[in-house]
Amino acid sequence: MGDNTGNNSSRYTQRKAFFERMLTVYGRKPVLEALLDPALTCHALHLADSNRETGPVRDILRAAEQRGIPVHRHNRAELARISHNGRQDQGVAADILCPGFRQLADYLAAPPTASRQRLLALDGITNPQNMGMIIRSAAAGAIDGILCSRRGNAALGPLVIKASAGTLYRAPLLHCDTLPSALADCRKAGFEVCTLRADAPLSLFEHRPRGHCIYVLGNETEGVSEAVQAQADQGLAIPMNNGVESLNVAVTASLIAFGAYFER
Amino acid sequence: MGDNTGNNSSRYTQRKAFFERMLTVYGRKPVLEALLDPALTCHALHLADSNRETGPVRDILRAAEQRGIPVHRHNRAELARISHNGRQDQGVAADILCPGFRQLADYLAAPPTASRQRLLALDGITNPQNMGMIIRSAAAGAIDGILCSRRGNAALGPLVIKASAGTLYRAPLLHCDTLPSALADCRKAGFEVCTLRADAPLSLFEHRPRGHCIYVLGNETEGVSEAVQAQADQGLAIPMNNGVESLNVAVTASLIAFGAYFER
Repeated sequence: MGDNTGNNSSRYTQRKAFFERMLTVYGRKPVLEALLDPALTCHALHLADSNRETGPVRDILRAAEQRGIPVHRHNRAELARISHNGRQDQGVAADILCPGFRQLADYLAAPPTASRQRLLALDGITNPQNMGMIIRSAAAGAIDGILCSRRGNAALGPLVIKASAGTLYRAPLLHCDTLPSALADCRKAGFEVCTLRADAPLSLFEHRPRGHCIYVLGNETEGVSEAVQAQADQGLAIPMNNGVESLNVAVTASLIAFGAYFER
Repeated sequence: MGDNTGNNSSRYTQRKAFFERMLTVYGRKPVLEALLDPALTCHALHLADSNRETGPVRDILRAAEQRGIPVHRHNRAELARISHNGRQDQGVAADILCPGFRQLADYLAAPPTASRQRLLALDGITNPQNMGMIIRSAAAGAIDGILCSRRGNAALGPLVIKASAGTLYRAPLLHCDTLPSALADCRKAGFEVCTLRADAPLSLFEHRPRGHCIYVLGNETEGVSEAVQAQADQGLAIPMNNGVESLNVAVTASLIAFGAYFER
C-alpha cells in the first residue's frame, strides 16, 4: 500500500514534470517549422477534422509521419481547448518538449550552487515582439532562468516564437503563478532582487551582485508594478547619453544577459 | 578679390555644414511630432498645395505658426522632390536640424583626442525597425558616431524615426558615400576596424580596443560584405548559450554601445 502510494506519487511527479516541459504551439507555419527542426522533440500533432488535408496541412502530416509523431484528430471545439486559441490555431497544434522549462518551485527546491545564478523576471511584458527578443537574448546570454508568470505577459504563442527566432523552445523558462509571491520565494532562497528603473540612483554597470541575483523588467509603458517593487532590494538604472530617455526593454534585457561576460 | 573668394568659400562651407545637419522628415504624424518637440529646431515646413488645410494639416500649421517656423507651399511634384518620397509624404515635410549629423570627412579632419573614440558602422541594415533600434541604443550608449552610407541602409524616414523613439534627431550620425572607402579613411586616421561575425575566433567581450575603434554591423541575413571585410583588422564574435545561433542586430549594437561602461 505504502509502495503503491509512493509509485503513484512518483508517477504523478513525473507526469507533472512532463507537462511542465510541454509547449503547445499552434498555427500551420509554426507547427510545420517545429516539426522540421531536428533539434526539437514533438510528442503529438493535433489536427481539427475540419482541415482539408492538402497543401500546408499535407506537408505537416508528411513531416509528422516521417518523424513517427502520433497524430490525433479532434473536432474544432476540442482542438481549440488544446491550442487555447481557437481563433488563430488554423486547425493545427503540436506538443513540443522544451527541456529548459520548469516550475520556479522545483528550481528553488534544488538551486544550483556551483555558480552565482542570474535570473531575469518579466513583470508585464505585453508586446510579443519584445517578449520574443527578450527570450532570444536571455537564452543566448548568461541567464540561468527567465521567470515568467502565467498571466500578465504576452502569451507564448506564434508571435513570440517568431520574434524569439525559435529560441523559445530552448530557453530556460521558470514558470510561476504570480510574480510578487515568486520574488518573495526567491528572496527567501537568498536571491537579491533588482528592478530596472530609470530613476534609480545605482547604475546597472556599477552594481555587482553579491550572490544569486534576479533582475526584474517592467512593463513597456508602466514600468515595474508596485507589488513587485515592494519585493525589490534595490533599483538599477542604465545611464544614457544625448537626451535619450529610455531603451527598448529587449535591449535592457540583453545588457543584463551579457553583462556577466563583461564583469569577468 | 582674394578676400571675396575666402568669404565665398567660408559661406559655402557654412551652408554645406548647415545642410548636412538637416533631416527632411515627411508624413503628417512624424512632422507634427517633430514640430511639437520643444527640443528640436525646425527650419521650414513644406506643404503641398493639394492639402485640405483641415484636421491634421491644420494642427501642423498651427504648431508651425506658434513656433514661428516659415511655411512654404509647393505643388505635389515639388514637394515630392523635397521629401524624396512622393508616395508616402502625405503632402507634408519639415526640415529638422540634427546637431549631431556630420560628414565623416569633417569628423576625421579634427578627430577628438581627449578620449578613445568608438564608432559604429552600418553595412546594409535594411530593416527600418532594426535601423531605428540601433540608432536609439547607439545614441544612448557610448558611441561617438554612427557611420552610415547614403545608400545600402534603410532610409532615414518615418519608420526609422518611429523605431528610434525619436532619438534619430539627437544621434551622432556620420555620413559617408560608400562604407569601404570610409573605413579605409578611418584606418588611415588610426582607427582599428572590427567586424561582427558569428565565426570570428575572438569574442567581443575579450577584445580591448588599443585606441580608436570602429565596429561594423553587417546585413541581417548576409552579414558583412566582402568589400567591407577587406578593410577589417579583425572579426569579433558574441558567444551564445543554449544553441542560439544569432542575436538581433540591434541587440548586438547595444552590447557594443554599452560595452564601454562594463570595461571601465
